[in-house]
Parts: sequence; structure tokens; C-alpha cells
Amino acid sequence: MVATDRPGIDHELTQVGTRPVRPDGVDKVTGRARFGVDVNLPRMLYGRVKRSPHAHARILNIDASRALALPGVRAVVTAKDFPAADDSVSELGESVSTARFLLENVLASDKVLYTGHAVAAVAATDPHIAEDALELIDVQYEVLPPVLDVLDAMQPGAPLLHRALRTVEMAGLFMPGTATAAEPSNVASHIRFERGDIEAGFAASDVVIEREFRTSTAHQGYIEPHNGTAFWNADGELTVWVSTQGHFGIRDQLAQILKLPLSKLHVVPMEIGGGFGGKIPVYMEPPAAIMSQQTGHPVKMLMNRKEVFEATGPTSATYIRAKIGAKRDGTILAAQAYLAFEAGAFPGSPVGAGAACAFSSYDIPNQLIDGYDVVVNKPKVQAYRAPGSPQATFATESILDEIAEQLDIDPLELRLKNASSEGTRRSDGAVFPRIGARELIEAARDTAHYRSELSGANRGRGVALGFWFNGGGESAAYATANSDGTVALTTGSVDIGGQRAALAQQFAEAMGIPYERIVSQVGDTDSVGYTRVTGGSRTTFATGWAVYEAAMELRRQLEARAAMIWECEPSAVHYSDDAVLHGPAGKEMAFAQLCAQLPHTGGMLQGRAGVAPMTVGPAFACHIVDVEVDPDTGKVTVLRYTALQDVGKAIHPSYVEGQIQGGAAQGVGMALTEEYRFDNDGRMLNPTLLDYRMPTTLDLPPIETVLVEVANPGHPYGVRGVGEVPIVPPLGAVANALASATGSRMRTLPATPERVLDALLEAKR
Amino acid sequence: MVATDRPGIDHELTQVGTRPVRPDGVDKVTGRARFGVDVNLPRMLYGRVKRSPHAHARILNIDASRALALPGVRAVVTAKDFPAADDSVSELGESVSTARFLLENVLASDKVLYTGHAVAAVAATDPHIAEDALELIDVQYEVLPPVLDVLDAMQPGAPLLHRALRTVEMAGLFMPGTATAAEPSNVASHIRFERGDIEAGFAASDVVIEREFRTSTAHQGYIEPHNGTAFWNADGELTVWVSTQGHFGIRDQLAQILKLPLSKLHVVPMEIGGGFGGKIPVYMEPPAAIMSQQTGHPVKMLMNRKEVFEATGPTSATYIRAKIGAKRDGTILAAQAYLAFEAGAFPGSPVGAGAACAFSSYDIPNQLIDGYDVVVNKPKVQAYRAPGSPQATFATESILDEIAEQLDIDPLELRLKNASSEGTRRSDGAVFPRIGARELIEAARDTAHYRSELSGANRGRGVALGFWFNGGGESAAYATANSDGTVALTTGSVDIGGQRAALAQQFAEAMGIPYERIVSQVGDTDSVGYTRVTGGSRTTFATGWAVYEAAMELRRQLEARAAMIWECEPSAVHYSDDAVLHGPAGKEMAFAQLCAQLPHTGGMLQGRAGVAPMTVGPAFACHIVDVEVDPDTGKVTVLRYTALQDVGKAIHPSYVEGQIQGGAAQGVGMALTEEYRFDNDGRMLNPTLLDYRMPTTLDLPPIETVLVEVANPGHPYGVRGVGEVPIVPPLGAVANALASATGSRMRTLPATPERVLDALLEAKR
Repeated sequence: MVATDRPGIDHELTQVGTRPVRPDGVDKVTGRARFGVDVNLPRMLYGRVKRSPHAHARILNIDASRALALPGVRAVVTAKDFPAADDSVSELGESVSTARFLLENVLASDKVLYTGHAVAAVAATDPHIAEDALELIDVQYEVLPPVLDVLDAMQPGAPLLHRALRTVEMAGLFMPGTATAAEPSNVASHIRFERGDIEAGFAASDVVIEREFRTSTAHQGYIEPHNGTAFWNADGELTVWVSTQGHFGIRDQLAQILKLPLSKLHVVPMEIGGGFGGKIPVYMEPPAAIMSQQTGHPVKMLMNRKEVFEATGPTSATYIRAKIGAKRDGTILAAQAYLAFEAGAFPGSPVGAGAACAFSSYDIPNQLIDGYDVVVNKPKVQAYRAPGSPQATFATESILDEIAEQLDIDPLELRLKNASSEGTRRSDGAVFPRIGARELIEAARDTAHYRSELSGANRGRGVALGFWFNGGGESAAYATANSDGTVALTTGSVDIGGQRAALAQQFAEAMGIPYERIVSQVGDTDSVGYTRVTGGSRTTFATGWAVYEAAMELRRQLEARAAMIWECEPSAVHYSDDAVLHGPAGKEMAFAQLCAQLPHTGGMLQGRAGVAPMTVGPAFACHIVDVEVDPDTGKVTVLRYTALQDVGKAIHPSYVEGQIQGGAAQGVGMALTEEYRFDNDGRMLNPTLLDYRMPTTLDLPPIETVLVEVANPGHPYGVRGVGEVPIVPPLGAVANALASATGSRMRTLPATPERVLDALLEAKR
Repeated sequence: MVATDRPGIDHELTQVGTRPVRPDGVDKVTGRARFGVDVNLPRMLYGRVKRSPHAHARILNIDASRALALPGVRAVVTAKDFPAADDSVSELGESVSTARFLLENVLASDKVLYTGHAVAAVAATDPHIAEDALELIDVQYEVLPPVLDVLDAMQPGAPLLHRALRTVEMAGLFMPGTATAAEPSNVASHIRFERGDIEAGFAASDVVIEREFRTSTAHQGYIEPHNGTAFWNADGELTVWVSTQGHFGIRDQLAQILKLPLSKLHVVPMEIGGGFGGKIPVYMEPPAAIMSQQTGHPVKMLMNRKEVFEATGPTSATYIRAKIGAKRDGTILAAQAYLAFEAGAFPGSPVGAGAACAFSSYDIPNQLIDGYDVVVNKPKVQAYRAPGSPQATFATESILDEIAEQLDIDPLELRLKNASSEGTRRSDGAVFPRIGARELIEAARDTAHYRSELSGANRGRGVALGFWFNGGGESAAYATANSDGTVALTTGSVDIGGQRAALAQQFAEAMGIPYERIVSQVGDTDSVGYTRVTGGSRTTFATGWAVYEAAMELRRQLEARAAMIWECEPSAVHYSDDAVLHGPAGKEMAFAQLCAQLPHTGGMLQGRAGVAPMTVGPAFACHIVDVEVDPDTGKVTVLRYTALQDVGKAIHPSYVEGQIQGGAAQGVGMALTEEYRFDNDGRMLNPTLLDYRMPTTLDLPPIETVLVEVANPGHPYGVRGVGEVPIVPPLGAVANALASATGSRMRTLPATPERVLDALLEAKR
């Protein structure tokens, strides 16, 4: 580990940075942990979803009478059954809104926009009956021509998905835009970042390289399918048990769709078997809720793998054209990019984030970036780990590699020369605080991996740098002291990657007590303050911050209580970082001693905090990869992989390493094997984990990790958030390694054996 | 309702005093509510308890080998399997401690002390196998003579239950005492309250009456039997689902018995089907936990009705001798009492409380009270609604009735003349704050019932006054504001009588928002601060106070946030009782408006409070009852019943009335029909709800209630706590009515037809 200074910490950390056992570990490996599929309630019904066989079609009629006549079938719902249905129908084709699109993706009202689009749901006493009933729901369609590619969809005359969709000009990231276009279009929005004089920058450059890139639709590939169980009781309270990255977000979406006050909605997060951004929106929860309301029974719904592929949200396929100019000494003078991202059936690709990430790793005076969010007849994309950055970074890092080659500069030196640092302005205009990009590249340069020789035919090494914003937003924590000096800690963050442990460690550190004295749990929506999704690399950072503040608040109360006991001013008592209260005249009392006195001195004490940090810790990753290509088959073998990352401060280094390894593995999957294959009618050809090829442990070497710790000054322990940025560099790093191995640049990913062979043949010509 | 002033409330109450629907109501009446018996976990085992057929015997040997050989049996445990077993064995017969007795009552180690005493527990894959296995556990006993009556047990030479038990002289209520006696005894403790000159008091009296009284062992009679499910997971965390009045207390007991830190213990309170004091101790939870630890499976245990009667804790049977002297004008000058209470097999009868309650309704200058806690070979008694007071009050109110008769004073006037009021010193030395005893008697005197004529043969009317302390202690509340202005409120109080509603009402009142905007839930031991048992009439009072403080704390934070938004000092913002924030220059913002702004102005806000009130609101009740006696059968019919009570402030009047009606009904049961019948060997003859005769709705007239509201100055809304005191007057009131109807005084209760006939015959002689 490479550590730098930590802000605001005046003592040696004893809990943060250790590797304790996670509270959910044993339950998970022994099969005891309760996932959504384990929810079983008395008199429960089982729901299934009827889905469109067409990528684009008008719904002429839905007749559920035969399904309803099947013994055991208790309910069939369509979009018309929703309280928001009237609004949504009247809006259809007239205006667009996020809420409207959310509901329409849950159940299509007059058009289906992708194969697998939900049109109806059925609940029955048995899952097999529900499955059988799907065949008995008769849907009449008027089939329309689909548009399946981002550039095709942007062409004049392309089939239009939404009659009323007009291109919105976006003023900036996360800022509302305005639709000024006269004609409807599949281009939902256009975002532009501009700086300096792009033409002058290219004119002053000694080398200018412009290339086109393509990436494919890829799924997050979480092992646990989506599931949800809803019970709407007789006095109008709806409880939903669900696998999600954020139960408060599920509650918000349900409140919007079902028009319920938040107090009538109870969302219980079950254990989650992976999300990576894909388990944020609702899919089956709303129909399950409506069918529960109609029947008075709990309704459980579960996707199969095909549904997960066809009807949840993968990441965008993209087309990117990028152009970079540099001086002979390697100084980058200008960078331009045109990014077109597929949004799937409804607006909302991560093109804005991709546009902002494309060049932000580097300090480039002249930039022009255009991003286009384009609807196509594929499933609506959702967040996928650093959404948009891997694709954009693939383009940038590929071109930089060519520049380094042309200028005969070591690729890491080229990156180090141009790397962003504190004060550099990002492409979207924000200014970087203290960041670790330079330390990271230096650390990469110093690794044994990078210093090693790579010999042998058909082998090559690639490097790439990657940037991700990381997120902030609301988090809450609540801690109650027990009389024996143990503490129960409740937070609102779903635990995906060991958060219960990492949050307890921060609380333990802040209190100066051992980790083992904390019981750390995830509260449902009624049991803890509003907390945003576990995503955006925000949880250990923002919820960790809430946990720290809750500890500080508890410490202040403990000081006041000790002052009461000692009959002195609260200001005369100090809680020191080793969990001892110090009072006047050398009086001392340990935390646990005071806890034992709390009951009879005014009651037990509880700390709580809600935070909403706006400033976050930007993250950088630098990856080094060695590959070998089989010239006969095109198969790529990853020989060695080292992932370096500025993590700010690793609270639980094992889980940080796990995040880095997982992100790198997913990135390698996007680089080499993972893609949705569609036929011309827009039907997915490979909706199984056998045919949609994610890398397994057999496909990857052990991924070496190097944690660089450049403390985030905006967090009590310097945490930056680590979950997303490791997926950013692999596409570029692997592509660069392939170029080094074969002499051919792969600009369309994944670099499947077929594409690699083509490239090899092309190079030989 | 008779209302007096309310402390500290400067506005009209809009939520407190209304009768909203309770959150658990629909779930309970539709069978959806989850009780302990509804806990079903994968691979769960079912536990049963092997119990002693002898009231007093030495355990010579326990051989479980035949049971363990039965297919499906997974574990058999005895006292030896507990981590505390070694301590407890070495202590046995040598010293006594509460912890030791607690464990010994859970599983006997070397002696069984009552029929039904647990000696072993078994867990099997099926409840029937577990039941069968009990027969295969071979226990060898050396049977000892039992002692079954409190006075017998006090005799020299009586069989001794505990070789090391020496009488402790108690210095006062809830104060530790010292054992000075040289010889072991069945008298566990002696408490004395003394004031003035008792002999001079009697000498100055014009009328002195001394009588002996007997009451029987009676059970709380909750409909739901005890249950508990335990799962001890592979990394040492124990979760227990249980029907209890206080999950934190269950956690404390388990921590003591199992020697676990509180953070490893998770106790989840299920819905509870009645407790009345009896669902506070652990019974089957510890063996379930040990068997879960041994097998790795969850273990569920459930008592049947016979076990509930024989092996849980009813209230004491008692012998009381009391003597009261008064002047001719009715002024009571002296009162003396000798109270001997059965504790059952282990020390801990409510004799101290009985002694303190006996005369505290009245201002009596000369008093001498001796109370004896006596072990006998019956189940260990537990709390039962105002423990000890109904029995002691029965004696006092019977004698007062005789004095009123002799002095020809109206019985209510006699009580009013002597009633305690603010400043009166209780028998145990405490001084009453503002109380409503006088207002109550005046209200009773003014009722239509008391003013009505009761005509007809064999009919009579009785009145009685009763006092109960009410309890305080630790309670916690945690409230999180939602962005739509609704609030989730979590408290640690098990909801027995509508507490979720009554607490939400107080929170709504304190925030100035409608009740319907609150979702009110009970948190488990990890989810909210330490909260004492729902008992001692403390919940609506103390947890209500915590809820109020949490609201006040939330209000302060809202003021600070509004000040931030308005860019002014927090002191310039005021949250008014109609839920509007007022700022400088007439600025205003409603609570819900501010809630919508919380996310982007620093995060959501949460209020929390822990309180531990020491001062409580003493409670009085005055009951009037008309009865008719069938002279041929001795059967007593209750013709009319009116229960008046000083409730301080009724938060939810319907639930207050329900508490009063329930308490009166239970008191009538103790007065007329309920008693444990034992054979000479100490075996209970009537351990079923057919033979143990609780009054049903067919046995009682509608019980009229009158709520008198003399606000408790020690609570924000004047709450006193209402659950217990209604059980205090019925024994005396019914006995007095019987005397009026028959001319014979019933001094042994219950006044079964058999005893009433005997008394009638006696009177005729």
C-alpha cells in the first residue's frame, strides 16, 4: 500500500485499514442469508410477466379472459390497472417525462419497444400455473420496423420510437435541458462540453490521430435474478421485499407509480446477489403490488435469466469518434470526441458521464465533446459501474497509445506528463480537488509487472488510465449504545460489497472501540433515515461519513452525561480517541463504564446523523495487462493483470481489493467476450449465461492489486469510494495489449476470437 | 370525561385524545399479524420440555440415551449444558442469586421444586417426535415432601426448598437487603414499613377491626401460550424471536444465562397475545438457543396450556392479617398489616409492592406493615398487573367497609375523608405529587350508578378504591422524516394495548401533524435504543415521553435547517405547534415543505431520544359493583360494574377504556372464580381453561368506564399510565358487594359458589 497523509485524523487508526470478518459472511456461505427468493408468506401467489416477442409493435388489444379462466389464476394486470395509467395514456405521444417512461417500461401501454418488453402480468396460486397462463393472454400487435443501431437510429427517416421525443439540448451534467427541435427524433438529448480553441489546438499539434470506436451492449451479469414480493394489506399499507441496491429509491419509484404517500410504503431490502447498477429501477414490483391489492394475497415475482437479459437494463452500445493532438514532447494540446450512446427504448444512456470522463484524466487546454443519447429498440439501459466511462475511456486510451507509439514515448510517461492534478479543470467544467492520478501512474511505473520483460510471440502489454467521479448524496446512520459498551449500528445502505463491515469499522474507529463490539445492520425504509442507493461508489464514503457523524454526536452526548455524573460543565469533559472520557481533576471513565451507568442516569444514548455530501473524492485507476493471442483461433489469453487504484483510504483492504478485481474482471469481459447478439428483428440470440460469455475464474489470471492512498480531504478518513473506477481502464488496456501483441488495433469491442482473427487477416493484407 | 388542567401544553390538543385506527388492527383481525408461532425457518427443529411430575424431589440422574436414539431427535439438553452451569452447580445450596434462580427455573439442576419444573429439553425434526422423545428421557428422582401453603412454609420444621436461603431484611422497596438469620428458611425476605405509634393509634381509635384474608394463586390467563424460536448461527450470533412484553429484557436475561455480549444477541419481538406481567421472564428461549447452537438449526418451542399453567408465573397466593382503627367521625388513625405472600419455588413475590400499596390510598398517621416473601413448592410467581396490590387492597377495603358500616358512614364518604392527596406520605415513605384520588371518589359519588337504587333480594353493592405506583425507566424513540412530510417512528416498546397508535398520536401532537402521516413500528433490540418492558403501566407514559422528546429534537433540527435556507440565525426560526416554521420578516414554511427541501440542503433529518423518568404518575381507581347471589347454588352474578380511574390524560380513550375493562374483568375473575387447585402432592388439578375458570363475556355485564383526567405534571401531555390499577379494586369491591348482598363477609377469595354457600350457611347458624 502506498499511503499519503490523512486529513483530520490525529491518531493512529486501529480499526480502519484492518480486515475483520464481515457480519454476513457465514450466513452467506452456509446458505442462511435471506435473499428475495427466500421470502415466503402465507397464502402467497406467484406472478409472471407476459412479454413482447417483437422489438417494435403497436399493442392493438390485450385479452386476458382465457388466462383468467384458468383454475388457479387470480389476477392479470396491464398498464391500465395502474393509478397513473390515465395520466400516462394521455401523455403518450404528447409529452415525455421520466415518470411516464418509468411506468411505460414496467408495463407497455400502447407500444412495445423491445423484445421482452412487459405487456401484462399474471398472479396464480402456483408458479407453473402462472407460467401456463402467459400463453393464454392474447395480445394483438401491429408489428413495426425496429431500429437496432445507434447510428441507424440517428438517421433521418429512421423508425421513431416515441412520436413526441424531441432532442433536448443539455446545458451540463445533471442539469435540465430544453427541447428546441421542431421534429421528433430518436436523439433524446445532446450534451456539449467545449473549452479553448479546438481547431487551433489541432493546428499546433505535431501529431493528430482520429479514430472510430464501437462497443457492444453488455449486461452487469449479476448472478441473482431480479425478484420482488409485494403485500398490500387491507388498510392500504404496501410492504415490498426486494433485491435492490437502494430500497429508498424503490420506495420513491413505487410512490410515484402507485401514488401512495411514503408512510404507506415499506420496502425491505433482502440480501442482494449482485447489482453493479442494474438493480436500481423497479420492474416487477409495481405489478406485484397491484395484483396483491386486487387479490388480498402477497404476490411474489422472480425473473428467469432470459428475462434478466431481455428486460432489465444493460449498458449502452456506443459509437465514438475521437481525435487527439499532441506536441512532439507528448504534451496533449487538443481533444475532440463525438459520442453516440444507445439508451435502449427510453432516454437515459450514460452519454453525459461518458462525455465528461473521456478526457478528464488529462489536463487538455482545447476540447470539444458532443454526446448524443439515442433511443433504439433494445432494453432500456441502466447504470453499469462507472456508466459511460469505460466506453469513452477505451477511445481515449487507444488513441493515446498510438500517440505514444508514434512519438516513441513510454505510454505511462505520456500519461504522467498530461495527467490531471489538483486544480485541473475537468471536461465538464468542475475543478479537481486533491487527486491521486500522478501518484497512481508513478506507482504503476514502479510495479514489478511493468518493470518485467514480456517475451514470446503473439504477446503484448497494454496500459490504460481511467477516471470516475464517484457520488455523494444523502445517507443516514443511527447508533444505540448498549449497557455493556457494545453498539447497534443501523444504516440505510444495502450491503453489496461488505458495507456492514466497512461502516462498522468507521464507527468503531470514530468511537475508539473494537470492531467486534459493533453489530452492524441494514435498516428498512421505516427504520433509518433516507439513504441513497448503494452505487456511485458512494456507500463507504457517504454512509461512512454519516456513521462518523453519528459517532461524534454520540460522543458529545456521552461527554454531557459524564459531566452530569461528575457535576461539571460538559465543556470540561473530553472523549478521547481511545474511548476514555476525561473530566476535571484527572477523572477518567471508559466508554463501557459510562454505558453501564446510562440506564440510571437519564437513559441510554443514541447517536444519529444524516449527511448529504456534495463534494466527493474523484477516483483514478491505472491498469497493466499482458495478453497472448492464439493466431489460429483468435482466442485471447490474459497472462497477467495488475490494477492500481487511488482509493483514498482503504477501510477494509480485502473488500477494496475485491472491488478492484471484480471491476477489472467485468471490464475484461466487455473487452473480450461480452455482447448482446441480436437478429435483424431485434431478438436477442444469446440470452443465457452459456452464450453470453462472462469471464470465469478459468478465463482470468489472479488480478494483482495495488492500493494507492491519496487521502480524500473531503472525508473524515480520506475515503474516495472504490467500486466503479476499476471497470474503466480494462477496455483500453486490453485493446492496447492486443495491438502490442498483434500489430492490429481493435476498435470494436468485445475483441472476440472472430474479430481478432479478422484483424489479424486485415493486418496481413 | 372529567378533565383538569394539562401541564405545559399551550394549545388545543388535536391528536392526543382522539381515537384513530391502530396500525396493527387490520392485520390482527384478518389473521395476518405475525405472532411467535408464525416464525418458520428453513431446516427448523421443534423443541419440547421434559417436566417434573413431582412438586419437590432431588434429581438423581437424567439419562437421555433412549431419547437421543429416536430417529429425528437431534439434541437433548439439561442444566449442565449451559455456560453458567458450573457456577450454578457450585452455588447450589451455598448461596443465592437472582441469576442463579433464573437459570434454575429454566432448567432444574439438582432439585425440582414444583410440578412442571423443567428438567430437560429435546429438539427434533418434528414436534410429534419431540413429544415422543420426552417419554424416553429417564429421570430418577428422590421424592421429597412438598410444602404448598404460605403459612405452612413459614413453620419451623417445614420442608426447606433451598438449603442456603436465609431471610433477608429489606430496607425498603427496590433496595438491597441483608441476610442476618443464622438458619435457612423458606422466608426469603421480610420488609417492614413503620410510621408513628401504632399502639397509640389503635388506643385512640373508637373502632378497631382486625381480620384475616386469603387469596389464591391466579394466572394472568393470556390467550397466546409462551413461544420462542432461536437460531445461533455459525459465527456465534444468536437471534431469538419471541412473544414477550420486553425484548430488551429477554436480551438481558439471555446475556446473563448464555454469557454473551449484548451485541451478539438479537431479540425480535413478535406480536403478543397478552402478557399482563407474565411474559417478562425467559423459559424456553435458553434451551432453544443451546439446542440451536448444538445442532446448527433454528429451534422453535411452544408451550401448551398445561405448561403455561404449571410452569410459568402466576401471581401469589397470600395470607393477610390487617387491623384498622378509626375515630367515630371516620378519621383513620392507625393501620397494621401482616402480609405473607407465596413466591413459588424461588424468591420474588410482590409482597413489597403489596405492603406499600395496602394503605397508601389513605392518609394514615400510624402504620406498621410487615411483608414476608415465602417460597413454596409451586411455580415461581411473576408479575401480574399491579402485582401485590389487589390482594393487599382487598384486605384494606374489606375492613374499611366494615368500619363504614359500624360508623354508619357512606363508604365513599369514608374513603374521601381519608383519601391521600398531594403531599400525603405513602406507606413506603415516598410523598405523593399531584394525584387524583379525591377527584375520583367525588366522580364515583356522582355517577348514575352510585346514585341509583339497588333493590331486590340477595343483591348488594360494593365499592373499593385502589392505588398503584406506575413505572418509569428507560425508553427510546427514533423518528425519520420523509421528503413528503410523513414520518417513520420506531420505538422499543412491545405493543400490547395499542401503543403503536398511542405513541404515534403523541408524536403527531408534538409535531403538529396528522396521525395518519406517521408510520409507527416496534424496533428489535438492534434497531432502537434500550427500552424497558411494556409493563408497570409505563409505556404510554415513558415511551410517550421519549417520543415527545424525539419530536422536540427533530423540531430543533428543522429550525436550524430552515435558518440555513433562510440564511438567518437558528434562534430567529420558530417551529409552531401547527407545524409551520416561522422565520424573520414573516417568512413561513410548512413542515412538509421543508421536508421536500431536506435532501438537497444537507440530508434528511432524524429525531431521537432516550429518557428514563424517575418520577411517574401515581394512579388511582375506584370501582362500584352490584351483585346478585343465588342462595341455592352460591353462584354470583355481576349485575352492574362501573370503573372510574384517574388516567392523567387519555391519549387514545378507547384503548384506555379497554385497559380499564380488561383489568376490572381480571379482578372480578380473581374475586369470584379463578384459582389454582392442587392435590396434596402439589399437582395442579385444573390446568385447562375449562377448569381454571376465567370470566368470559357471558359472565360479565358491560363494564362502564369513567375517565377522570387529573394531569400528571411529570409528563408533557399529563399521562399517568393506565394499565394496572384497574385490577386493584375489584377484589375488595366484589367482596363488599357480597357482604351487602348476603350479610356474610367473604375473606377468602375467590368467592366460588362453594365458598359462598358455606358463608351463607355460616350466617344462618
